[in-house]
Amino acid sequence: MATKLNEIGVRVSRINTIADESEAIITTLEEVFQRVDLVLMTGGLGPTNDDLTKKTLSDYFGMELKINEEVLADITAYFTSRGKKMLQMNIDQALLPDGAYVLRNYKGTASGMWFERDGKSVVSMPGVPYEMEHLMETGVIPRIIEKYRTTPVFHHTLMTFGEGESFIAERIKDWEAGLSGSGVKLAYLPSPGIVKLRLSAFGQNKSELEETVMSKVNELEALIPELVYGHNDETMEMAVANLLKNRGMTIATAESCTGGYIAHLLTSIPGSSSYYEGSFCTYSYRSKTKILGVDSELIAVQGAVSGEVVEAMVKGVFTHFDTDYAIAVSGIAGPAGGTPEKPVGTVWMCVGTKENQVTQCFHFGRDRMRNIRMTALHALNLVRLSILDS
Amino acid sequence: MATKLNEIGVRVSRINTIADESEAIITTLEEVFQRVDLVLMTGGLGPTNDDLTKKTLSDYFGMELKINEEVLADITAYFTSRGKKMLQMNIDQALLPDGAYVLRNYKGTASGMWFERDGKSVVSMPGVPYEMEHLMETGVIPRIIEKYRTTPVFHHTLMTFGEGESFIAERIKDWEAGLSGSGVKLAYLPSPGIVKLRLSAFGQNKSELEETVMSKVNELEALIPELVYGHNDETMEMAVANLLKNRGMTIATAESCTGGYIAHLLTSIPGSSSYYEGSFCTYSYRSKTKILGVDSELIAVQGAVSGEVVEAMVKGVFTHFDTDYAIAVSGIAGPAGGTPEKPVGTVWMCVGTKENQVTQCFHFGRDRMRNIRMTALHALNLVRLSILDS
Repeated sequence: MATKLNEIGVRVSRINTIADESEAIITTLEEVFQRVDLVLMTGGLGPTNDDLTKKTLSDYFGMELKINEEVLADITAYFTSRGKKMLQMNIDQALLPDGAYVLRNYKGTASGMWFERDGKSVVSMPGVPYEMEHLMETGVIPRIIEKYRTTPVFHHTLMTFGEGESFIAERIKDWEAGLSGSGVKLAYLPSPGIVKLRLSAFGQNKSELEETVMSKVNELEALIPELVYGHNDETMEMAVANLLKNRGMTIATAESCTGGYIAHLLTSIPGSSSYYEGSFCTYSYRSKTKILGVDSELIAVQGAVSGEVVEAMVKGVFTHFDTDYAIAVSGIAGPAGGTPEKPVGTVWMCVGTKENQVTQCFHFGRDRMRNIRMTALHALNLVRLSILDS
Repeated sequence: MATKLNEIGVRVSRINTIADESEAIITTLEEVFQRVDLVLMTGGLGPTNDDLTKKTLSDYFGMELKINEEVLADITAYFTSRGKKMLQMNIDQALLPDGAYVLRNYKGTASGMWFERDGKSVVSMPGVPYEMEHLMETGVIPRIIEKYRTTPVFHHTLMTFGEGESFIAERIKDWEAGLSGSGVKLAYLPSPGIVKLRLSAFGQNKSELEETVMSKVNELEALIPELVYGHNDETMEMAVANLLKNRGMTIATAESCTGGYIAHLLTSIPGSSSYYEGSFCTYSYRSKTKILGVDSELIAVQGAVSGEVVEAMVKGVFTHFDTDYAIAVSGIAGPAGGTPEKPVGTVWMCVGTKENQVTQCFHFGRDRMRNIRMTALHALNLVRLSILDS
């Protein structure tokens, strides 16, 4: 919700998470109306007894609940198309406050409601994320644009990979010092492996704002070109997918410690069948040998977590798949399985084409899910660099 | 944070998300101190210029920043062990407010700080989730228990799969009506495929509370036994993993539309190598034929998304892996690829042992990530039911 509001120039002053209780809802509304004109709410609109929001707001605004025939027809169609029986509590979802503006919901049975009094507005939406997103897009955002004069805002984010925020801050400190007075603000938004650098400006003229911010974005990108893999919330898998698509190239993976997570990232993007061929998750020693043809002697001598084994896994991928690129990873995700020589977090990966591969060893930390994610990001980044180099 | 506070009997009255600005921090603190005694904060403790929290709170409480030698030693060790160069801004992380209680952070460089004045406390923690979790566990929770008298609270959650909240509410309505007066509250917490039923009670005596809630839990579970797959935030993959581990059984998968997501879920659990053998992600037609031995004629006649093909995929899994169970899924995740006969969201799956399999067709919706997740949950649930039946 905040992202969408920002896009149209609405500044979000605060996000409150409160108890599902009438008193908490009313107290919070009265408190925030001291500071703001518009409150967007989600949740509490379901059909069960613990859903209190509709009743609470209708009472607060002195409106009666009446059956809305259009909404009842929507709900009936919703159940008919799914071949499910409609219960009384589903019909009751069409009971709506007489006097509120109704926002039709075509993805569920809980309508959105827009209440107004004395220049203050409350918009109530269902808590199910994709229903809320649908109502924001079709009803709430267009109505905000219609009713309010908003302040233009412009954000642009550079997505960086591979260095921590303090390292980046040190590299760009002179440039950052020069930002003050430009009206552009910089935020460092770190998460494992990735630091987002968000540049923002607020002002009067949207195209001027955009020009100001983008000139700073270009300066910043020129300072750390090898760290920037994308823009504006682009994920690493999107960056790799776009490169593969643009060059008509394909990829396959052989995963041990990531257990299918790299494949999952690569196939989370619509249209992935154009560049993604398939994967092997060879978790056991036996599967590495039997399916990828890794020499069992090699595993015995070097260990399954070794450069030699990931290189053999990549060869194994290319015997099955005629792709341009292959990824193979093998590591100790933890929490168990570490040894003094190969502690938890040790990961080997081999990435490349049939002719040209890179093999690297990494040492991540002790957290299993973080190790799986860091492994996947590094492997995908190596593919990205390899494509850009070719 | 709220979960951990609840566990020790602290009721969280509100969660505020505010701007990274000194004024917003101070205004919010003064506002919430009207209502509560203890405020836990996260974020804004990093080394970069946009991190304002430490300075803001130190000024607000009138404390000077001084180097804390113990913390400086921690930070130095942190960089030494990672073989990274320490910058001035990293050293500055040891500058801490003289007068605040310092919570040592062994997973990062930002210390936690506990400020007190006039019976009100503010605890500031870093925003990186695993650092915050570490500080909550080692410093904040023990100190809250020491300083405050808390109200016992007891929650127990039944995890259900496969029916919507209105269907469940209808089935249990008489029992739910009888809850009033028992002191036990019921909340329906729905997410795609899963509805959590959370029973809670607050009171004076912890063991009495537990007895009251658990007797209601048992009544509720007896009403909908086939829908309950687990307790207290157990995920579907944990439920399946526990069944497999307890019976010494193994599993492998062949995934098309889920692209490795089922494998990822099965390997997200520590110790998964005891039950998980490996997977094939056969995204292309060719890979289904070449790797799993699915007859290309069968694909041409029935289509890749068909009962015949997923049955052949399961056979293919068993030719490679000698596991007890196999899963195969094939579907149209969307947004493209649908036809009038097989619209987006159509998924076939086959699940079972070498001797005994179940083949089913599902129709999910239009959202790609939701279709992938629903497919994985249904496939894992079929494994669960099959193990329980055997």
